[in-house]
Amino acid sequence: MTAYQAPLTDIQFLLNDVFQIDRFNNLAGFADASPDLREAVLIEAAKLSENVLHPLNATGDSEGCIRHDDGRVTAPRGFRDAFRRLGDGGWIGLSAPTEYGGQGLPDTLSHAVGEMFSSANMALEMYAGLTRGAVAALLAHGSDEQKRLFIPRMLAGEWTGTMNLTEPHCGTDLGMMRTKAVKRSDGSYSITGTKIFISGGEQDISENIVHLVLARVEGAPAGIKGISLFVVPKRLVNPDGSLGRANGVSCGSIEHKMGIRGSSTCVLNYEGAHGWLVGKENKGMQAMFVMMNDARLGVGMQALSQSEVAYQNAASYARERLQGRSLAGARAPEQPADPIIVHPDVRRTLLTIRAFNEAARALVLWTSLQSDIAHRTQDAGEREMADDHMGLVTPMIKGVLTDKGFANAVCAQQMFGGHGYIVETGMEQFVRDARITMLYEGANGIQALDLVARKLPRDGGRAIKAFLAEVNGFIEDHTGTIDLKPFFAPLELSLSDLDQATSSLMQQAATDLNEAIAGSTDYMHLFGLVALGYMWARMVKTARDKIAAGERSAHLATKLLTGRFFMDRMLPETSVHLARIRAGGRVIMDVPAEAF
Amino acid sequence: MTAYQAPLTDIQFLLNDVFQIDRFNNLAGFADASPDLREAVLIEAAKLSENVLHPLNATGDSEGCIRHDDGRVTAPRGFRDAFRRLGDGGWIGLSAPTEYGGQGLPDTLSHAVGEMFSSANMALEMYAGLTRGAVAALLAHGSDEQKRLFIPRMLAGEWTGTMNLTEPHCGTDLGMMRTKAVKRSDGSYSITGTKIFISGGEQDISENIVHLVLARVEGAPAGIKGISLFVVPKRLVNPDGSLGRANGVSCGSIEHKMGIRGSSTCVLNYEGAHGWLVGKENKGMQAMFVMMNDARLGVGMQALSQSEVAYQNAASYARERLQGRSLAGARAPEQPADPIIVHPDVRRTLLTIRAFNEAARALVLWTSLQSDIAHRTQDAGEREMADDHMGLVTPMIKGVLTDKGFANAVCAQQMFGGHGYIVETGMEQFVRDARITMLYEGANGIQALDLVARKLPRDGGRAIKAFLAEVNGFIEDHTGTIDLKPFFAPLELSLSDLDQATSSLMQQAATDLNEAIAGSTDYMHLFGLVALGYMWARMVKTARDKIAAGERSAHLATKLLTGRFFMDRMLPETSVHLARIRAGGRVIMDVPAEAF
Repeated sequence: MTAYQAPLTDIQFLLNDVFQIDRFNNLAGFADASPDLREAVLIEAAKLSENVLHPLNATGDSEGCIRHDDGRVTAPRGFRDAFRRLGDGGWIGLSAPTEYGGQGLPDTLSHAVGEMFSSANMALEMYAGLTRGAVAALLAHGSDEQKRLFIPRMLAGEWTGTMNLTEPHCGTDLGMMRTKAVKRSDGSYSITGTKIFISGGEQDISENIVHLVLARVEGAPAGIKGISLFVVPKRLVNPDGSLGRANGVSCGSIEHKMGIRGSSTCVLNYEGAHGWLVGKENKGMQAMFVMMNDARLGVGMQALSQSEVAYQNAASYARERLQGRSLAGARAPEQPADPIIVHPDVRRTLLTIRAFNEAARALVLWTSLQSDIAHRTQDAGEREMADDHMGLVTPMIKGVLTDKGFANAVCAQQMFGGHGYIVETGMEQFVRDARITMLYEGANGIQALDLVARKLPRDGGRAIKAFLAEVNGFIEDHTGTIDLKPFFAPLELSLSDLDQATSSLMQQAATDLNEAIAGSTDYMHLFGLVALGYMWARMVKTARDKIAAGERSAHLATKLLTGRFFMDRMLPETSVHLARIRAGGRVIMDVPAEAF
Repeated sequence: MTAYQAPLTDIQFLLNDVFQIDRFNNLAGFADASPDLREAVLIEAAKLSENVLHPLNATGDSEGCIRHDDGRVTAPRGFRDAFRRLGDGGWIGLSAPTEYGGQGLPDTLSHAVGEMFSSANMALEMYAGLTRGAVAALLAHGSDEQKRLFIPRMLAGEWTGTMNLTEPHCGTDLGMMRTKAVKRSDGSYSITGTKIFISGGEQDISENIVHLVLARVEGAPAGIKGISLFVVPKRLVNPDGSLGRANGVSCGSIEHKMGIRGSSTCVLNYEGAHGWLVGKENKGMQAMFVMMNDARLGVGMQALSQSEVAYQNAASYARERLQGRSLAGARAPEQPADPIIVHPDVRRTLLTIRAFNEAARALVLWTSLQSDIAHRTQDAGEREMADDHMGLVTPMIKGVLTDKGFANAVCAQQMFGGHGYIVETGMEQFVRDARITMLYEGANGIQALDLVARKLPRDGGRAIKAFLAEVNGFIEDHTGTIDLKPFFAPLELSLSDLDQATSSLMQQAATDLNEAIAGSTDYMHLFGLVALGYMWARMVKTARDKIAAGERSAHLATKLLTGRFFMDRMLPETSVHLARIRAGGRVIMDVPAEAF
């Protein structure tokens, strides 16, 4: 039996003190999100997470989704009711425009809430997350009619959304897509093909499902330049919004998966289904990227969420499990054994997870804030900087947070010894659920490739230069503060590693792109460590200032210790990544394919 | 659907060329294991692994073990017959003494075979592995009568063996054990208590089960000094070896586990069961350590085995999966896309796994050879050195090979993208199965603690000094060989890191043991990297000599490239481990327990 407690203190510290989001009250929705309202929203979300969503996490896993012979799919018990509460409470549309029934609040707040929901029950939250993604694509590219017809019902949780990209023979390489669209005389399209790995593709928690489907219009150019996006509702929607007859889409089977078993993963067969073009013909990939960028940030957050809930349960267990004695002498002599938290290696493991979680949370919220700026500012220069940041940081967040978040779930499970391997303990579910985050929305190798081959060189490296300058500036601004020195000196070293790695990659890319790509995953992790280190620098600086101003709390004291742990023990890994990048790709490419 | 192909070429290269085990023909059993006989044994084991054991791996996982209402447990379909073949073929007793029906061959050969069986079907091989462990304990500490009565039937696979240590409230800390033994007038003991996590504790693949049970004799000293070992057969055995009535032991339940589902994990209730003392009263821990040391080496090998089979399937997939194009231009223009093996990051991932596997295999076989020497030599000095090696290296092999082997199974799964998450693909089973190796036979944190707090300082650090000297000597012996320089120079650096880390730990331990223990996991991995690096140095040297002598093969050519990859990209991690060890434990210990 696992438990979850929303990290409210830490979230408030980040929003109020580290990022001081009240500074952004010029952005739409931010002034409405006053400190009091934010607190009320976060407390309500915490209650829902702890008391409604989390109790369904283990049962959702053990029951899983079931496909019936007639093609219907049922989600685990309780999921339908819990999802209703997400819709009724306005949680799906927390940051969506008020004109379609959303709350219009900042994305930053929505992501803070998303972490909680996902920690509590990742499989259940996925139905909401996918719906938010589909809404985002419709908002960006849909017609007014499509927005009016679909979005309010989706934000209310009455209807859900899906993304249909993958086919059996094509995942990463969408140019090979075969699903076809033939224009009908009434302006709609007839969609035919098979899509796989469709999360929430069929289920019984919503009245209708709004499928966003990539397909190729007859006669379109080959490759990804000939792909269009369509909205294909499971049940047709009449002009007055009422539901019509079933559309030509059915669930052929559902996948038996390692984890996230409460989330249905469907094979969808489209047989002359009615679809309506979203945006322009052959411009489907652009529309889909709107969903994908948001989704990648969300997937990074999912991994953090599993790392967080796994940490909490491991820390509780370590405080309670009596086994053996401290090597420095019994700490609980009145008990038959000491709690295992007395052991340095148990603490080291827990701190490794925690030091990641707190910095990853900061990184997600900081990046969400950039997303809010990019979407809501009136200032073109500000928007460009925020867009640069999002482009550069999103693949890294997806790749680094999921690699580390999964590894942390494994570490947390490890604290339980053999008991961690038993299903009933609940820890192995966090591992299995977290595992998907490294795979979907582009496997992590693809994120590294995207970062190094596309995002890094874009506009002459403007985005990475801005990042390096920002971190460097922050370090320089605080060189005079002696008590920050032990924290900032390691960051300076790692920032230099990142700087050198960037130059090294650029040079390698100039002669042989494969040389640079051989270092792509190392570069992604090196960048990630520096970004997490920068988050630690900002958190430590804020905590230090608050303590200097007389504030005292366990949260602030532990923040400094955890920050120091990160700087001393985790950040120095940058040097190994740099060494690997410099090793290049010759040996790697020299091995003949058949020799592997 | 996964496949498995036994790595015969690599095993033969290690036994014949790198370790030249024919040099040890003075040891009992080695002369019998002529090159021809070894080859015949390995080829038969390969066939059995590929054609009999592996086809039952996925079905064993999906069916799992079932406990019936009457307490009987049935293993998955096919397990009983396959296990019969292991017994009938003499595979369980391959290295056991001929006087009890074993084959008397070297342990080194038995471990080479064990890797194959375990790659093919880890859950099934566990029944044999546990039986071998129980035989080892009986051989070392059992009475002549016990040996005569039990061992031949166990080696034949008619009866199996188990280890009963863990209780619900005590795993690592066996001193807290409550199972009690009361002496009866007939010299036997009445055993009462509950044991958990008993692998193979109940099943239908053997006619009888020989439980080795730790319990406390009434009035024994507190703690681990009052623990005795008993043999408690599931069915009593008459003096003529025939089976008598059921003993007072029953299976209360079986665990629902993350993996190794074909291996039954039982709660065993002993209610006045008849047990017979093995060895002396209160000396049970020594007897159990015989099993545990062997078992820890075996668990390291299990992790390697999963890393190997996962690698093979990932490499095949990477050669076959068509998706996208090489960034350096299409490599298979005649196909709709290139196979993903063209991508540097895919190759980097595969080489990371392979570079570990080949060195880990060498390390396991080298250590098995030391085990053979320790058990079979007549020379006291040789035995002491081999014992030192075993003591030092066993916890490291357990900890490092399982951490890395699991991580590699995850990396191999990653090559499949989303398909890797689907149960039918078979890759996620390797991950789930490999996961247990980090947890059982002492969780890895315990291995690190054992290494740093016990094995390292023993006899004034004699064992680690001998290891450092051996590696250093090997490097010095080859300083003149120019083409080995790129391989040996990185090893020299990492050896220096290990040397410094050892001194650093010794100093820390002198003032505050917790300071040293805070670095225990890092030390274990630093030591592991150097040991794997040394194995690479020996393999590279041998391969280079063979090539210099005119031999040509893909195996030898790839050996050099993979060795270079290890030295350039994996070995440099030692520097980060050293930095962490030097950071000490102050920050770690400063966090109050309640703040975690």
